[in-house]
Amino acid sequence: MTQNVDHLIEKQLNSETIYEGKFITLTVQTVELPNGKQATREVIQHPGAVTVLAITAEDKILLVNQFRKATNRTLLETPAGKLEPGEDPLTSAKRELEEETGYQAAQWKHLSSFYTSPGFADELMHSYVATDLTLLKQNLDEDEFLDVLHVTADEAEAMVLDGRIADAKTVALVYWWLRERQREGK
Amino acid sequence: MTQNVDHLIEKQLNSETIYEGKFITLTVQTVELPNGKQATREVIQHPGAVTVLAITAEDKILLVNQFRKATNRTLLETPAGKLEPGEDPLTSAKRELEEETGYQAAQWKHLSSFYTSPGFADELMHSYVATDLTLLKQNLDEDEFLDVLHVTADEAEAMVLDGRIADAKTVALVYWWLRERQREGK
Repeated sequence: MTQNVDHLIEKQLNSETIYEGKFITLTVQTVELPNGKQATREVIQHPGAVTVLAITAEDKILLVNQFRKATNRTLLETPAGKLEPGEDPLTSAKRELEEETGYQAAQWKHLSSFYTSPGFADELMHSYVATDLTLLKQNLDEDEFLDVLHVTADEAEAMVLDGRIADAKTVALVYWWLRERQREGK
Repeated sequence: MTQNVDHLIEKQLNSETIYEGKFITLTVQTVELPNGKQATREVIQHPGAVTVLAITAEDKILLVNQFRKATNRTLLETPAGKLEPGEDPLTSAKRELEEETGYQAAQWKHLSSFYTSPGFADELMHSYVATDLTLLKQNLDEDEFLDVLHVTADEAEAMVLDGRIADAKTVALVYWWLRERQREGK
């Protein structure tokens, strides 16, 4: 299913950097549309991120409950974090899982890498499944505060359906897990 | 599972607006952490968005292939768009589906509302399932260029697993669909 996409591509004519922050950069770009007209695109550049579906020996997943200032509420999410400059995504995933939950995993599998908000941001999220877990010690960043929950498949699905889970990557990974369990006959 | 989250909450001390654009606003906020220390949060305010898993009578879903300047590539996504000011999400979902694909749907169901990038943005995405479709006429915005694809469940799952689908909301909705089909014995 290789498609010719030339008729869809926007050509960048100009890019102005509005803000270079600690984590994100905002540029405003002028593009030429496929019909020759011009348009403006507001673009957030982000270092990329990782998230982990960690499955315990009790067949539960680890979720973290964390205040997210952007949304002004706490959210239940799969453990996640930003990539450090030059960091390999799998290394980052292992680091984030251990920092946020205290668990190390012996088995890692890459699931999918997806953009979270392609309408305005380049954040690419690499997702992993981690199994064969060992509990060490939670080691949060100085400015990080979160609770860790252990959640069954039935609970996780109910939490998506009633809105207690309201985070895109977590919804995606919970449903991936349900699909995988179906394959395994669970 | 009501939880006390007081020990997680960040208190906003200050907010500076860096940029107010056509679609997004960037603020840099100073917060007081649960431990009394201060930290900086870079926050993108977004009007919110909708996305639609539209299922045809042939048991296929509609995906749109669209160039996304933020990511500098085309992405296969469920039809989606930003909320207009004051617009009801379901009204927006109906409008976006018809504009982008030319289809109207007689049956609508709200699936879930989720944040797409809660680490730095408040974009809340309302997702719907649309069935009982009638093809009218694609009616794109002046600066919108996209192709519409009809994709089976098997194809959609393969496209997630091999990376051809690389968009968080679309991954979530494809796996929701696979789960629903399992329930229906498909």
